[in-house]
Amino acid sequence: MRYEEFTIEGRNAVLEAYRAGRPIDRLFLQDGCQDGPVMSISREAKKRNTPVKYVTKERLDQLSETGKHQGVIAYAAAYEYAEVEDLLAAARQKGEDPFLILLDNIEDPHNLGAIIRTANLAGAHGVIIPKNRAAGLTATVAKTSAGAINFTPVARVTNLAKTMEDLKKEGLWFVCADMDGTQMYRLNLKGPIGLVIGSEGEGVGRLVREKCDMIASIPMKGDIDSLNASVAAGILAYEIVRQRLG
Amino acid sequence: MRYEEFTIEGRNAVLEAYRAGRPIDRLFLQDGCQDGPVMSISREAKKRNTPVKYVTKERLDQLSETGKHQGVIAYAAAYEYAEVEDLLAAARQKGEDPFLILLDNIEDPHNLGAIIRTANLAGAHGVIIPKNRAAGLTATVAKTSAGAINFTPVARVTNLAKTMEDLKKEGLWFVCADMDGTQMYRLNLKGPIGLVIGSEGEGVGRLVREKCDMIASIPMKGDIDSLNASVAAGILAYEIVRQRLG
Repeated sequence: MRYEEFTIEGRNAVLEAYRAGRPIDRLFLQDGCQDGPVMSISREAKKRNTPVKYVTKERLDQLSETGKHQGVIAYAAAYEYAEVEDLLAAARQKGEDPFLILLDNIEDPHNLGAIIRTANLAGAHGVIIPKNRAAGLTATVAKTSAGAINFTPVARVTNLAKTMEDLKKEGLWFVCADMDGTQMYRLNLKGPIGLVIGSEGEGVGRLVREKCDMIASIPMKGDIDSLNASVAAGILAYEIVRQRLG
Repeated sequence: MRYEEFTIEGRNAVLEAYRAGRPIDRLFLQDGCQDGPVMSISREAKKRNTPVKYVTKERLDQLSETGKHQGVIAYAAAYEYAEVEDLLAAARQKGEDPFLILLDNIEDPHNLGAIIRTANLAGAHGVIIPKNRAAGLTATVAKTSAGAINFTPVARVTNLAKTMEDLKKEGLWFVCADMDGTQMYRLNLKGPIGLVIGSEGEGVGRLVREKCDMIASIPMKGDIDSLNASVAAGILAYEIVRQRLG
């Protein structure tokens, strides 16, 4: 179903899409909804001449892919993938060392969305995902990203290990997370860096792991095996933020 | 539906429940499933004399609350809430300063589960949730916690602000997260501490916030408003871990 790639659901996600200047083809609002966020969306729609249709909650439920439309569904142009070069250009433009987040085997759209959200707030210049075995930029990803998908570019590549090799020529170092790594607080994570996150079950793939310059471990005191992938990504991304601030 | 409080779904969650010694009343396995994790669960079931029923995938889909049973569903005694005193006792027993995580207005069971999981791995001694306006310990919470719910006690209290007052008498300091707080790296988060996490939309309630000794901010560089609640909880919990290690 390509259809879901053209749907944005939920108040925050739709409002952020407008604010980011994304072209909205059509807007569906729930009849009788008149609270603040919905009024803001209405105003944006008027400003951009978006055709608005007022419909029942039942109709929205039918249209909804995520089941969480909050009275608002927009049809937009599909999210466009960026090129890896765009991510580096974004860093150059800000005069910052590149900080990229690479996802190996993250198939859960909720995790992908939450990681794009974290990437945006941690000041990463973009996210790189592999073409195979990965969640694409669907409505669920857009919603879970809370609008970050409009600001933080996502590039999709055929071969993650090959891309890492190319990026090393641009001066990037790569760090991935694994239990048997060096405690992250003891690593030097400053400078141009790519943070590689693997799936909860399988971790980072062998070929990708071999391209990493550092293996970082998050200290774990508990009884279970691993953190949620998006929580682990957040903790590691913010260790990079902390070191860059210091 | 009280029913869902008695269901554990998914391989990891069921296996962890067995390993934690939780009483399982009945086990449903998908016919023909014979991979490693399922065999481990079978062995555990035999050891504990759990009645096992082999059923079709369709039957499991019917029984499933989460839709993600992975061929395994167990009926267990409901998760029992701990008392706040149990959490303090756990810290005493380990000879550690208490480290508790308090959740104000977290209504999403996925966030609750992920935070219990983080609490376990960050070495927190327990989680405190309010009785009203909060997700309870359902099957979804158990699954998202990846088994941590079996190890990390969760206490439910009538009045979070009142509980914080009582805990202050036990020597705890409280820190909550808010955008206008002091950058978390500059705060002293060592010693007996309660970390208070609010919902993404509303943050921490006024009465609870007034009881906090410190307001911590996570540095945010991006274009959107806030991190996912469970990601923010992870980043803050691990800043506490980092300071305790240092």
